Amino acid sequence: MLPDPLLHLIELLARLPGVGEKTAQRFALHLVAERSGTAQALSESLRQLGERVKSCEQCGNIAEVDENGRATCVICRDKRRDAALLCIVAKVQDLLAIERSGAMRGRYFVLGRLLSPLDGIGPDELPLERLFRRLKDDGVREVIVATPPSVDGEATALMLARDLTTRGVAVSRIASGVPHGGDLEFADQITLGRAIEGRRSLDSR
Amino acid sequence: MLPDPLLHLIELLARLPGVGEKTAQRFALHLVAERSGTAQALSESLRQLGERVKSCEQCGNIAEVDENGRATCVICRDKRRDAALLCIVAKVQDLLAIERSGAMRGRYFVLGRLLSPLDGIGPDELPLERLFRRLKDDGVREVIVATPPSVDGEATALMLARDLTTRGVAVSRIASGVPHGGDLEFADQITLGRAIEGRRSLDSR
Repeated sequence: MLPDPLLHLIELLARLPGVGEKTAQRFALHLVAERSGTAQALSESLRQLGERVKSCEQCGNIAEVDENGRATCVICRDKRRDAALLCIVAKVQDLLAIERSGAMRGRYFVLGRLLSPLDGIGPDELPLERLFRRLKDDGVREVIVATPPSVDGEATALMLARDLTTRGVAVSRIASGVPHGGDLEFADQITLGRAIEGRRSLDSR
Repeated sequence: MLPDPLLHLIELLARLPGVGEKTAQRFALHLVAERSGTAQALSESLRQLGERVKSCEQCGNIAEVDENGRATCVICRDKRRDAALLCIVAKVQDLLAIERSGAMRGRYFVLGRLLSPLDGIGPDELPLERLFRRLKDDGVREVIVATPPSVDGEATALMLARDLTTRGVAVSRIASGVPHGGDLEFADQITLGRAIEGRRSLDSR
């Protein structure tokens, strides 16, 4: 029923995360029908993307390509940041979330993926060589592992803790527990278990 | 935090239906990170879209542009279709859904929008002139109004029924009631009211 160029577009849009065939069709039909030139503007923006935006060569964060074709992100360029403190995250979105909190004064390292034996992702698939080089080059003394509190995230954190401790780096893991404003009544049992396990003393003596 | 070219892309992606700032950011970061060239392929596909796909000049359905730069959809080109029977729908997706049912042997007319006094969409914003021309050119004798059973869809159906009846065309409205496989227990009261109102005689005498 639909012409080939449209079917091809739908197929490409369905590659976006969380977008199925049906949503992709809705996007494509919207782009055909609307008249303010979004399709052309998107085309141009995507064309420039590869030339102007790359992953930061230091940390994997998003970075704008400079006049020499190199990409170093604003955080890695910022001299006021503590180079001895490194926060390891799974993906760029997590880095952005931590930045919004304002709680991190060091730099970051984006793994891009997590250990996942079921999907065949072992330690060799993680950019560990690049991480160890960074630790040495920057003289990192403390690492905060901020992978998500999921099975894969925990497995990755344990592996990193082991590898980094043998390199003489202090390693910590972000706290897991009942979120701020959350209701204990509706928290799942793993979250509550972690909240109790990770309790902190209020003893003021 | 994010470079300008990426912010611009996020802004454009957020124009897609049902996509907010957060989802658009997720799409954009995915397109930067993935390495199979989806961003470039999408760019090229969108560039061609405007040249190769347009709304059908007859009915508003999606159509591929021919060598003369004209766009007539496969349904309007199909001579075996009953030109005297016209089905009016709100949007292309609805046309595709009816086509999948195989229940329509006539042609279509896509309104593109519905009457919506609250959004300031009155009869003048609907392509009625084009519809009336089509009725005359094709010698349409029967119209099925398949706008959705919503407030706007019903208002549009009533207006069309009035306008078309005065033009000597037989007008009907698709049935509204409990869907096939649906449970009466969980049907809302308006649907049940319509199901009873629109009941059909089973009298076989």
